[in-house]
Amino acid sequence: MTSKFDSAGTSTADGAGGQTCNVALLGFGTVGSSVARILCERANTHLRLTHVLNRNVARKKVDWLPSTVQWTENIDDVLSSDANIVVEVMGGLQPSEDWIRRALSSGKSVVTANKQLIARCGPELITLARQMNQQIHFGASVAGGVPVISGLHEGLAGDELFKIRGILNGTCNYILSQIEANGILFATALREAQKLGFAEADPTEDIDGLDARAKLAILARVGLHCNVNPESIVARTISAIDAVDFEYANQLGCTIRQISSAELRGELQNQELCAAVQPSLVDLKSPLARVEGAQNLVMATGKYGGETVFGGHGAGGHPTAVAIVSDILSIARAKQGEPSYAAQSVETTPMVTADFTTKHYLRFMVKDRPGIIASLSTILAHRAINIDAVVQKPGCPKSHLPFLITLEECKASLVESALQQIDKLDFMVQPCLHLPIL
Amino acid sequence: MTSKFDSAGTSTADGAGGQTCNVALLGFGTVGSSVARILCERANTHLRLTHVLNRNVARKKVDWLPSTVQWTENIDDVLSSDANIVVEVMGGLQPSEDWIRRALSSGKSVVTANKQLIARCGPELITLARQMNQQIHFGASVAGGVPVISGLHEGLAGDELFKIRGILNGTCNYILSQIEANGILFATALREAQKLGFAEADPTEDIDGLDARAKLAILARVGLHCNVNPESIVARTISAIDAVDFEYANQLGCTIRQISSAELRGELQNQELCAAVQPSLVDLKSPLARVEGAQNLVMATGKYGGETVFGGHGAGGHPTAVAIVSDILSIARAKQGEPSYAAQSVETTPMVTADFTTKHYLRFMVKDRPGIIASLSTILAHRAINIDAVVQKPGCPKSHLPFLITLEECKASLVESALQQIDKLDFMVQPCLHLPIL
Repeated sequence: MTSKFDSAGTSTADGAGGQTCNVALLGFGTVGSSVARILCERANTHLRLTHVLNRNVARKKVDWLPSTVQWTENIDDVLSSDANIVVEVMGGLQPSEDWIRRALSSGKSVVTANKQLIARCGPELITLARQMNQQIHFGASVAGGVPVISGLHEGLAGDELFKIRGILNGTCNYILSQIEANGILFATALREAQKLGFAEADPTEDIDGLDARAKLAILARVGLHCNVNPESIVARTISAIDAVDFEYANQLGCTIRQISSAELRGELQNQELCAAVQPSLVDLKSPLARVEGAQNLVMATGKYGGETVFGGHGAGGHPTAVAIVSDILSIARAKQGEPSYAAQSVETTPMVTADFTTKHYLRFMVKDRPGIIASLSTILAHRAINIDAVVQKPGCPKSHLPFLITLEECKASLVESALQQIDKLDFMVQPCLHLPIL
Repeated sequence: MTSKFDSAGTSTADGAGGQTCNVALLGFGTVGSSVARILCERANTHLRLTHVLNRNVARKKVDWLPSTVQWTENIDDVLSSDANIVVEVMGGLQPSEDWIRRALSSGKSVVTANKQLIARCGPELITLARQMNQQIHFGASVAGGVPVISGLHEGLAGDELFKIRGILNGTCNYILSQIEANGILFATALREAQKLGFAEADPTEDIDGLDARAKLAILARVGLHCNVNPESIVARTISAIDAVDFEYANQLGCTIRQISSAELRGELQNQELCAAVQPSLVDLKSPLARVEGAQNLVMATGKYGGETVFGGHGAGGHPTAVAIVSDILSIARAKQGEPSYAAQSVETTPMVTADFTTKHYLRFMVKDRPGIIASLSTILAHRAINIDAVVQKPGCPKSHLPFLITLEECKASLVESALQQIDKLDFMVQPCLHLPIL
């Protein structure tokens, strides 16, 4: 079980040294099965899924997991096993809290996505983990796949952050985007979001900001080092927002988003945290205004580094599972005593090419005369390159006439070979400017 | 020197356990002095600056560093000292490489911002560090204060990334933004950037993409696990871009940015890395198009988590120093054997309030009659709240007339107290909707 080539028969890609790290999964819903999927598909990994726990586990069984995985409904099977890391993705306060405490107490580290639990008793659980010389990671509890917890805790540790602002609830952002785009009533947008699975049957947690304020409490703790009870944060519903408000907001150069905001004020001995989750007008030029659909975005502001932005998929099985697997890997590395950067993954040394396949922008500068387009298009056609558009702005001198040809998707090397020929033509005042259109 | 209360007389805020961690600084230019400043200003830290090395060190001395700091021009003073971490912010390939090797070999960990060095010999230096049971961190080598190295290496470790795209050179982005905004020539924009200190006297490294391709090589290694020689990456200059190209690009719904792009193609055994640094057309809706001035932005795309964005200040003394201090803290934690999340900083438990000071949006729904504005403005004036604007969209029914009042900056509590009185007025069809304008 601890042989260097035990699990996959090859050396590690995860920097987890030589030892296999056993992982037990509590919960096999959308996120849980994504975690299992990623663990199975990873190449050269020393992570091994040993247990899956779920209610009515028989109906959950899938055939794509190794037969060595033990399916169970009994937490004692997990706690008494040789699992090193217990992953809790059941949600809810109980029995999650109890089981996490028992896992830590029996010398296992924990990874959880449970925002309500971490918002309420994160510090206690961290203390318990510390006492047991174990770790508890909760990167998936805020903003799903966006690595904002590690970003605040590690990447920006050198700064003194004083403000965190974000869009932390994809359901609200989706509903508000829909009201804005289609001028519909809040109730209509909510119903459609429910139909599409973007909102729960009981949407209160999302709509009224209770979900976001749990996440904000966690961010305030990790980023601002403030111990905040989530219930002390004011949360205001988005249900009062109407299409007319987007009309007015747009007139003011703004849009409306559910914004979670926490800001430290005052001197160290007398600090106050100004925090709320509420629909707010945000400037159309702000990154917050451009968050579409179910995306999440967090902006952290520090004394030294200014504003830093983290954005991406805030929910969904796969993105949330990425955050969980990242946490598992971090614990696995620490268990092996590997310093993080020394633990390099297996590297490949691939061929390097610049031969991107894209649309292309060709800007010519020519001495105008009849037949130019004909010459160019003949050379391009000869290589089966398709012209997308020809654009010429008016009012330019005949001796230095700039004009534009855009090309349909093709390889850059094909275009370059055509340009070698084109650049020699007598009407070319300077070499053609060739840019990819991404 | 190892007493729990040695350095600041209080317990640690950095999770560096009980032991002081000694830091030596090689280079005292803009970044070096910012690092020293942050280390001095941090409260309750167990990091202690012990050495500053620079050429002609006498002319560099400042009075705000503790007298215990040893100023020197001799690397042997540092190497033979009890410094635990050596920070290299001199730049250049030599003597930086030699000194970093010697620091690692004498059992010290290293933090460096040196992109060219890490792009060329990062893997060798990591191997050396590993052999010596030390660490080398280089978070500041790409995108300054944006924590993208740790984001890729830790936060997204659970994904399989296959594409990285970014704006990695603030100088090019500033010049291109200026050509776009002011319709000026490239040469003019460059001259102005040089005058303002945004471009070097010899701007080749930036303009021709050599700076960005070193950073891209590092990102490809950390995020895509590809060992890439930076010189194998095609770099194309931005100097051929003209104002007319922005006109054409805008017609296509695009703008032009210097984009660094690396993408893995093909199957594992036969992979190819498609990589280049080049001016490119990017859709105006892409986050890449909205990067202004000297900002940096990196988008990483993974098999499971989709697109994740990291953005912020890509250069400057303070943001770069944040990345360096974050790396120092990470090494200090590992040296103490502290698992990262167990190492919580000292937390405060501040008062929590939602009383933000902002502009305000008040949307009323009233039964129209004369004197409404007079009533509302009297109540607001009574609390010294200033009205900014009154807006009413045409064509609404008199019985349900929505209109908008915006208020100048004031505390939310003041507005709420006015609204308690206003909501009781007989013309109010429903309570006023009150949103902050951020």
